[in-house]
Amino acid sequence: MKTPRTDDEHKAKMAKVQAAQARKVAAKTVEKGLVIVHTGTGKGKTSAALGMVVRALGHGMKVGVVQFVKGAMATGEKAVFDRFPDLIEFKPMGEGFTWDTQDRSRDIAVAREAWDEVKRMLADPSYAMVLADELNIVLRYDYLPLDEVLAAIAAKPAMTHFIITGRNAPQTLMDAADLVTEMTLVKHPFREQNVKAQAGIEF
Amino acid sequence: MKTPRTDDEHKAKMAKVQAAQARKVAAKTVEKGLVIVHTGTGKGKTSAALGMVVRALGHGMKVGVVQFVKGAMATGEKAVFDRFPDLIEFKPMGEGFTWDTQDRSRDIAVAREAWDEVKRMLADPSYAMVLADELNIVLRYDYLPLDEVLAAIAAKPAMTHFIITGRNAPQTLMDAADLVTEMTLVKHPFREQNVKAQAGIEF
Repeated sequence: MKTPRTDDEHKAKMAKVQAAQARKVAAKTVEKGLVIVHTGTGKGKTSAALGMVVRALGHGMKVGVVQFVKGAMATGEKAVFDRFPDLIEFKPMGEGFTWDTQDRSRDIAVAREAWDEVKRMLADPSYAMVLADELNIVLRYDYLPLDEVLAAIAAKPAMTHFIITGRNAPQTLMDAADLVTEMTLVKHPFREQNVKAQAGIEF
Repeated sequence: MKTPRTDDEHKAKMAKVQAAQARKVAAKTVEKGLVIVHTGTGKGKTSAALGMVVRALGHGMKVGVVQFVKGAMATGEKAVFDRFPDLIEFKPMGEGFTWDTQDRSRDIAVAREAWDEVKRMLADPSYAMVLADELNIVLRYDYLPLDEVLAAIAAKPAMTHFIITGRNAPQTLMDAADLVTEMTLVKHPFREQNVKAQAGIEF
């Protein structure tokens, strides 16, 4: 708890904060397509990417979304995407992946197919934003060579935003990113309270 | 890098993971309205909440959003919300707050007005989800008594999800939450590259 300030002290302090903020904003002049990584074991990696997709759609920007793992994006967001058919291309490619298939060569083929979609979108400057949801999982399992991802990042149009989610982001990928956020679990009702996945929260 | 496994080893390992996953899911039987806090100095707190709002809208759930700080939610999401006028009530209340006003008593009055909206939504079971965006900032400045927030949480309908964002979440609030995620800055282009706020990312 901070010591209460008088109204005059508050006003002086806020004027200083305002000036510092104005200086900071004035120094920021660069516009560029960002490479954004959401990683960590906490929740919110896909949700936060989805929030950015929604912002982009609201601005009339064209967005491509490729989902590498089944269920990471689901019914809730799908219904919203369906209201923007002219702006969003949504490719849920992950039906073959995860422990449910138990078939590595099929998983690798599905990862390849999904990655080809991402590459196509990244190579097309009409996409203002591309989201590769749960790509880190595929990299973690060595289903896709990291070098290919780094090459696509290096070659992408300057103004395209590229968002990659999933736990265990490779260090080299984070090194190539402009913005890396780690979502850290502080408290989770799944583990502690046996709460199941619920509409609006997980899907 | 993990040691490559044979296909049979992979299959056996994935079958074990699948069985463990099935046991975990079976143990989760509780459904309840969650109190969710997104905090930390990293990005993605509001974006991840926005992602949950979008999921909820996609499921046809009624959502209330109150914005305590100007600009935390902006043009992008507003344009998307406008496509769901029957489902979302969006209250951007924060015009009076932050360093730009330099008037504490006005800021306190605005915080009070915004909180009254949140309380009204939380008391109405027709709202499946309520988001108090940047409420933690207001608590941090002591513009609103934390006890009132805790009382509203204790009194809310059992199935209502209540999401609170903002850095510096009070410990007592986190103690009262079901799910707390901390967004940690690993790398940020604003600070390191003078990149300005861009459509689709920050607003």
